[in-house]
Amino acid sequence: MLGRVRTAMAQLVGGLGPAPGAQPPRDSPAPPPVPPGPSACRGPPAGGGFSRPAFLQLTSEELQRADDHAGRVVQSPRESRRRLPWSTGYAEVINAGKSQHNEDQACCEVVVVDRRCSPRCNPVPKECTGEAEGGRKDLCFHYWGLFDGHAGSGAAVMASKLLHLHICDQLRDLVDILQDSSPPPLCLPSDSRALPAERNRAPLAHADAELPNDALPRFHLEKAVSHESLVIGAIENAFKRMDEQIERERTTRLVAGGCCALAVVYLLGKVYVANAGDSRAIIIRNGEIIPMSREFTPETERQRLQFLGVLRPELLGNEFTHLEFPRRIQHKELGKKMLYRDQNMNGWAYKRIEEDDLKFPLIYGEGKKARVMATIGVTRGLGDHDLKVYNSNIHIKPFLSCVPEVRVYDLTQYEHCPDDVLVLGTDGLWDVTNDREVADVVTEVLMGYEPNDPCRYTVAAYELVVRSRGVLKERGWRLANDKLGSGDDISVFVIPLGGPGNYT
Amino acid sequence: MLGRVRTAMAQLVGGLGPAPGAQPPRDSPAPPPVPPGPSACRGPPAGGGFSRPAFLQLTSEELQRADDHAGRVVQSPRESRRRLPWSTGYAEVINAGKSQHNEDQACCEVVVVDRRCSPRCNPVPKECTGEAEGGRKDLCFHYWGLFDGHAGSGAAVMASKLLHLHICDQLRDLVDILQDSSPPPLCLPSDSRALPAERNRAPLAHADAELPNDALPRFHLEKAVSHESLVIGAIENAFKRMDEQIERERTTRLVAGGCCALAVVYLLGKVYVANAGDSRAIIIRNGEIIPMSREFTPETERQRLQFLGVLRPELLGNEFTHLEFPRRIQHKELGKKMLYRDQNMNGWAYKRIEEDDLKFPLIYGEGKKARVMATIGVTRGLGDHDLKVYNSNIHIKPFLSCVPEVRVYDLTQYEHCPDDVLVLGTDGLWDVTNDREVADVVTEVLMGYEPNDPCRYTVAAYELVVRSRGVLKERGWRLANDKLGSGDDISVFVIPLGGPGNYT
Repeated sequence: MLGRVRTAMAQLVGGLGPAPGAQPPRDSPAPPPVPPGPSACRGPPAGGGFSRPAFLQLTSEELQRADDHAGRVVQSPRESRRRLPWSTGYAEVINAGKSQHNEDQACCEVVVVDRRCSPRCNPVPKECTGEAEGGRKDLCFHYWGLFDGHAGSGAAVMASKLLHLHICDQLRDLVDILQDSSPPPLCLPSDSRALPAERNRAPLAHADAELPNDALPRFHLEKAVSHESLVIGAIENAFKRMDEQIERERTTRLVAGGCCALAVVYLLGKVYVANAGDSRAIIIRNGEIIPMSREFTPETERQRLQFLGVLRPELLGNEFTHLEFPRRIQHKELGKKMLYRDQNMNGWAYKRIEEDDLKFPLIYGEGKKARVMATIGVTRGLGDHDLKVYNSNIHIKPFLSCVPEVRVYDLTQYEHCPDDVLVLGTDGLWDVTNDREVADVVTEVLMGYEPNDPCRYTVAAYELVVRSRGVLKERGWRLANDKLGSGDDISVFVIPLGGPGNYT
Repeated sequence: MLGRVRTAMAQLVGGLGPAPGAQPPRDSPAPPPVPPGPSACRGPPAGGGFSRPAFLQLTSEELQRADDHAGRVVQSPRESRRRLPWSTGYAEVINAGKSQHNEDQACCEVVVVDRRCSPRCNPVPKECTGEAEGGRKDLCFHYWGLFDGHAGSGAAVMASKLLHLHICDQLRDLVDILQDSSPPPLCLPSDSRALPAERNRAPLAHADAELPNDALPRFHLEKAVSHESLVIGAIENAFKRMDEQIERERTTRLVAGGCCALAVVYLLGKVYVANAGDSRAIIIRNGEIIPMSREFTPETERQRLQFLGVLRPELLGNEFTHLEFPRRIQHKELGKKMLYRDQNMNGWAYKRIEEDDLKFPLIYGEGKKARVMATIGVTRGLGDHDLKVYNSNIHIKPFLSCVPEVRVYDLTQYEHCPDDVLVLGTDGLWDVTNDREVADVVTEVLMGYEPNDPCRYTVAAYELVVRSRGVLKERGWRLANDKLGSGDDISVFVIPLGGPGNYT
């Protein structure tokens, strides 16, 4: 176990002081004080800049190499067993020239969730120490996060330092409930946070909360809610809180831009993969590919955005039409018939072109060139609160969503061999290497190493990044098939599904 | 080929006269005149009531049996080769007691699509006759529709008589485009309807329509649109037009209630399955089940409805909350914490109960008991324009959608054996018989008949309905496993994927 966030939580919840490890104002001469004790998530490495790949805690020599953009050095931690929990493999490369520093950021932690302290309890009650007491166990989760920044690395850096703390915070009320085999109570007493699990389950408290009102006999229906769906709800709300914090503190912390976020939580035997953006997660199990996320782009979310544009036309600023057309319409084409799609359609149909159709389409372009209001190519993520349409006062943020889609994989349902892995990658990987190719590279690399060699996952991640970056030739960075290599930042996690007990 | 709708189209497009075969006002002493010539879709059978199962054209003796609700007679056409195109099997049963007549309605047709007549062309130009000329071929599609009515059979009856005509109408501009192997033109001249395909493709017309404007160099992007997506768009828009027609004519035609609609179009080698509601279509191919639809219910569409409730809170009439709770909250629970989900969440989380949370949830209940505003259990379909929350002035229709989800199955991509079928069923079937059981029954029945026996599909449909209805015992209608049989109307199509050429 590396990182522990127990004391750091107070800073997050307080919401006033600087969050642990978050970016200070640029006029601040020194980074914020690092909380005492070794904690991988409490702050950036001493002296590390906030736009640097702080996650790997590289030496100064390595950082210097990382700044050599022309070389596009692929980096991975030299001692993965010390740096990363669960023998995780990780590698990244900085784009050559697009940005000065890596806009991708990463995080990997073991987080201990302490019960929330009630206002009525003692200043440092035993419940808040996270120690086991009276049969109640600590709750901890493993965490991996990838953050692909755009328009700067500020949001990505901040989210990489804090998102897991928000997830931790959302889980604090659930410590006992998640570890109790009975179904979660639908209703809790107002001061439930300070109560041990046993009291929540006491007949009196339960009767008080759950007894149906005889005056309302038609409302006796009760929906069963699973433990799993509480964790999903916690992760969803953590993304919202993270986005709100970026909004609140973006000026003081000078957090520019936004980021896609792909976060993995391993908790009580299940892997929760939360994705907001165009990063991707796949599981490779016995050579089979299991998609663990989908991408949120102007094309995949077209109908949601058009629906909003129809219901709130003022958000389109009289400059955009909610209709999609397969190309721009010219004024001289008025009266002709053009293919279109509205918010209800998956197919296309012809419509007579009217004056209003000459506005720029809310969604326009195809594939990687698709944009919302001609501006942004992803539709979910964190940040972007100041993003506007170029040369206008039209805000993009209302069309973006910070809500992830969470998929769950039950580790206990399968026997996993050491070659079964979860691969996380930013779009720099997936733009040039498809799922099958990624699975083949991983399988090929892992076969060359002993099953208990913890370096094998790092080498697999390294190899994925190297092959997607390509080799510098006369006509630029080229893949093995001579196609252009990814020109984007590339970050990859390779996480063995055997878990921490098996290979560390 | 049974039904042809060429002349009937004029009535639909005109939009003023009574649509062919639609329900007349109830004070009308006689049904509307049936257009001359044999056409399965031009009108109801002579003397047939509009709430009767007109589709099967049963004899009076059979109709009498159908009225014996206690008996719940399963009906299927005695001579399927004469009644149904493509050797389709069909069977239905009327619910015992819930309604006086069958609220399920069905339709099965072969529809010829004639080119739309331009206002500038001659009164009866050759293009409008639907006959092949100058290498341009007629376009025709096979069609099957299931309509599960609620709050009356009026909308189901009207949709069963007219939806395929609306699909036909939407396809009329596409007759030449769909049969031309080159990609559909993105833009058409304004009078394109009357032009033969050759002129649409002429270099001059194409250049005029497609030449990019040099003043807009950044807008040169063009999205390729497939023929398939034009058919999807046509079906989607046909559902909208059908819903608009029900809205316009519901008073004069006394069309009560609404209906789920499941429609299948076979056109140019592909099967398009369009579903709006909780009916279901599956393909059984070599024993494997391929889902061809999904159900649209308060549970599956919760987030869409909540999103609308948040953006248009006035639609909730100050009576409903957009939040979902797992049970009703009582006033005395104010201040406690309750599980909830908002429009962004798939998981659940606790929130402190406030005054506003005491309102009734927009979505409430589970499974078959789930309801929108405590009123309706399906969220897509046709009709329901007058549906209101009980004892209030709150309209439900804004939350309902008439837009189907269209899935496509390319018949030419596979070799089909005579046992490969597409099964359509209303929820009366699926509520008590799951996909696997349906596939097993179909396989079992088909094995008992010669592959070229056209009755085999009718027997399969009959058997599915009988088994889902059950047998009348002391404790009601019971299935083979002694569970309660479906208490709903049940309608089933079994359509061999070998197509019309193979088995008719």
